[in-house]
Amino acid sequence: MGWMKDETGLDKCAANHVPLTPLSHLARAARVFPEREALVHGPTRLNYREYHARCSRLASALAARGVAPGDVVATVLPNVPAQAEAHFGIPAAGAVINTINTRLDPDTVAYILTHGEAKALLCDTQFLPMAEAAVERMEGDPPLLIECPDAHAGHPATGRHPDYETLLSEGDPGAAWRMPEDEWESLALNYTSGTTGRPKGVVYHHRGAYLMTMGTVISWRMTLFPRFLAIVPLFHCNGWNHTWMMPAVGGAVICCRDITAKAIYDAIADEGARYFGGAPIVLNMIVNADGADRRGFDHTVEVFTAGAPPASATLSAMEDLGFNVTQVYGLTETYGHVTECLWNDDWDSLPSAEKAAIKSRQGVLMPMMEDITVVDDGMNPVPADGETQGEIVMRGNSVMKGYLKNPEATRKAFVGGYFHSEDIAVRHPDGMMQIADRAKDIIISGGENVSSVEVENALMLHPAVFLCAVVAKEDDKWGEVPCAFVELKPGAEATGDELISFVRERLAGFKTPKRVSFEELPKTSTGKIQKFLLRKRASEL
Amino acid sequence: MGWMKDETGLDKCAANHVPLTPLSHLARAARVFPEREALVHGPTRLNYREYHARCSRLASALAARGVAPGDVVATVLPNVPAQAEAHFGIPAAGAVINTINTRLDPDTVAYILTHGEAKALLCDTQFLPMAEAAVERMEGDPPLLIECPDAHAGHPATGRHPDYETLLSEGDPGAAWRMPEDEWESLALNYTSGTTGRPKGVVYHHRGAYLMTMGTVISWRMTLFPRFLAIVPLFHCNGWNHTWMMPAVGGAVICCRDITAKAIYDAIADEGARYFGGAPIVLNMIVNADGADRRGFDHTVEVFTAGAPPASATLSAMEDLGFNVTQVYGLTETYGHVTECLWNDDWDSLPSAEKAAIKSRQGVLMPMMEDITVVDDGMNPVPADGETQGEIVMRGNSVMKGYLKNPEATRKAFVGGYFHSEDIAVRHPDGMMQIADRAKDIIISGGENVSSVEVENALMLHPAVFLCAVVAKEDDKWGEVPCAFVELKPGAEATGDELISFVRERLAGFKTPKRVSFEELPKTSTGKIQKFLLRKRASEL
Repeated sequence: MGWMKDETGLDKCAANHVPLTPLSHLARAARVFPEREALVHGPTRLNYREYHARCSRLASALAARGVAPGDVVATVLPNVPAQAEAHFGIPAAGAVINTINTRLDPDTVAYILTHGEAKALLCDTQFLPMAEAAVERMEGDPPLLIECPDAHAGHPATGRHPDYETLLSEGDPGAAWRMPEDEWESLALNYTSGTTGRPKGVVYHHRGAYLMTMGTVISWRMTLFPRFLAIVPLFHCNGWNHTWMMPAVGGAVICCRDITAKAIYDAIADEGARYFGGAPIVLNMIVNADGADRRGFDHTVEVFTAGAPPASATLSAMEDLGFNVTQVYGLTETYGHVTECLWNDDWDSLPSAEKAAIKSRQGVLMPMMEDITVVDDGMNPVPADGETQGEIVMRGNSVMKGYLKNPEATRKAFVGGYFHSEDIAVRHPDGMMQIADRAKDIIISGGENVSSVEVENALMLHPAVFLCAVVAKEDDKWGEVPCAFVELKPGAEATGDELISFVRERLAGFKTPKRVSFEELPKTSTGKIQKFLLRKRASEL
Repeated sequence: MGWMKDETGLDKCAANHVPLTPLSHLARAARVFPEREALVHGPTRLNYREYHARCSRLASALAARGVAPGDVVATVLPNVPAQAEAHFGIPAAGAVINTINTRLDPDTVAYILTHGEAKALLCDTQFLPMAEAAVERMEGDPPLLIECPDAHAGHPATGRHPDYETLLSEGDPGAAWRMPEDEWESLALNYTSGTTGRPKGVVYHHRGAYLMTMGTVISWRMTLFPRFLAIVPLFHCNGWNHTWMMPAVGGAVICCRDITAKAIYDAIADEGARYFGGAPIVLNMIVNADGADRRGFDHTVEVFTAGAPPASATLSAMEDLGFNVTQVYGLTETYGHVTECLWNDDWDSLPSAEKAAIKSRQGVLMPMMEDITVVDDGMNPVPADGETQGEIVMRGNSVMKGYLKNPEATRKAFVGGYFHSEDIAVRHPDGMMQIADRAKDIIISGGENVSSVEVENALMLHPAVFLCAVVAKEDDKWGEVPCAFVELKPGAEATGDELISFVRERLAGFKTPKRVSFEELPKTSTGKIQKFLLRKRASEL
């Protein structure tokens, strides 16, 4: 390998080797452009000096409250400044940030708090009842609960817990940050619904998040001082790492607490937002906005969309409105997006149907990834013929460390030296990938991943249910919704509404089937349910 | 530190940890935009597929000729396609690229070839006589000499050595690259004139070059598909790593073999060049170009300049012509630039003298660096008062591994966990650094570093010279030229012209004093020559 004959004295030292971490971006931003706007939420405007100082306060206050390096600190927060600050302040205490989906049910959150062993929990006032219920149901020591009110958004403090600003006031704005000594240290913990019933804890390393931010700058054609609208919840893959990226480019994060067409148009027109990511449902919202909510703007807004290919009509409408939409693809396990439908200007003149067909591809690997390809069962790349299907596998620096306390699942995910996405795709002759059949079990509803197995497990708890399968059904509003096929036990009785209510008591609303059909399930000779047939059936219901 | 309580199974593996290397950029570019133009030189135009294939040929041909991983392969090349290809093809063989300054004298090149133990040498036909003389004078096994003709530029092959295209034809365009197994492996060897007589071999690691390219994209506000004019010789810090950066952003490298105002204007007007780096002498050349050489263009050209602060009049003239000039600062030891005079749009409305005063600062740390500051003898940062002087020290990921076979110099350079630049600067209240007194001994002539000690050593070889000191003298054309102060031995005689000719026989033209003054040298009580007084004297001559 590339070691010279004599490398005496050429070792790593403090001067020439600094562990990669996104914390460095904010530390530098506070030095290099302290006065520049960093964080905007309603009437709140913080520059980089203030942003950095508040993160220092958070880090030192958490440490004073007993949070030690390697501990987990969870959040149940929408996209508000506290959530952005948590992304720096928690790791600056050497701790691991665990952003929890605000829409989850208390049982699942209790599982996450128990499994992750969170020492503290920052919770928005709106979601406090859910968090309190979760803390009550969890096992082990309950976390220190810190309430994060948002009075401007109509959620003033309840006073039931120490509040966030009080916590910050306990901290030191000039406290030194605990930077990683090894870039492989853990930075974040993100629970994915995955394909099994129980969420798995995906662990990110500092190195991966740093490189994710640097690669994204290139792919998003981002130059210094962008104005970025945070729509993708930071509890999804840490918002695709965009909040960690912003200080590297001196950008402003404009918080989007409630995702409405009006909020988005206003942020574009009033705050000059030029970049955001969002699921196709967000694009639909923009395209179908009421006239009163629409605003004019004269810059192009760069949009990353993921979760499902944007529909052709949506794409055309978005472009007419001044948005440039790029589909990206990734998973929780890959810090968010790792492929992009990289556009070639030669295609500008194609008919819009052909353009939309290209834009519906998941595309090519982003700069921080080393290899992403589609392979057969023997790990051989499938022919680039646009027809042969295989599994998307990937290798690169924005791939998770693994699943927390689940070495067996980690080992399986990394078989053959590649991360296995479980997504089925084809390779086009030009090198682009296109997902042919989304991971069998996942339903993406309103941008949220729903594990069909989890819903099936809930249904199976009903005494009348003999067998069931849940698949995605296309839906104009949500993209997809869960649709259940059920075989009842002989002689047992239940209505669809009854089963829906039953599941609703146990799972979040977005996981609840919107439709239940009672019929015999199609099975293979070995008894495996043929979901592909059920998906077809669902589209006919 | 940030290790979780249970990290079982969360180790690095092939799927989630890939050694950082700029080689990945070109490998990806060939996959992602194979048809896009990559390399332009006169009538030569290569796309990324071709560029990659030629680098694969080079790597496999060198390996077949006996170049092993860790071996050094040297180049004596101007900015031509072979030099760009060498930057990927040599490391793709696991070897270390050693770009040698084409303007050096044969003795110095013989020293470099001996010290670096080059196994092969790619040499442009124009510089073949120098290289042949160097190989003749070197110790140890001579390198395999490959001639790189450039017939279009008037340098057809002599036929005295195997030529470059023949070498490539021996290689395999589909050969697998030998990627680093550890990102700390050596990538490049760059000899610096330093402050001592003999050049020191600065060793770069793959990680540093990768991170240098990613940080530079941000600082240079570079978006996908830039057109870049390679003016800074690739034998200076590998052209500030810009050639390694280009495939990351799908850019085209437009080679500039002979740096003339006409060549630069033509590249801007005909090739759409938008980015280049160059010493202030290049800016002067552009500003003072003959009317016939000037071309109109309607885009802004982004210029990085380094070596000395650009003069106020030059800056204004450049801006009027459509160039935006940013001063950057760095050293061979830091892969090139590590600070930038980061502009704040608030300053746009300042009077041009004030703008020029700001632009003359070396600025703030670039994104890939962790800390750059100015310290006193006790390693404490000096006050940010714009007056107190100290040494610039730095810490970050684009700092060299150290000096080859010189652990003592490496140790000294890294004392206290920082790289010591030996440049003296002040810190302004806004955080920007400004160099107050360039490293005492270095003369920068036409963008080339000249070690005064090396020139002094040459003068001292003359039998009549008793004592001498060489300092920089300002020069309208070259920025600075060496100026010698000499005390002759008692009774000995020599003229200035005689001494100039004497040095010229031993050193490159740009290192030869342009002026010699015979006088008693000012000394401290301990006998140290007071060069600061001589610099003042030189300005009066």
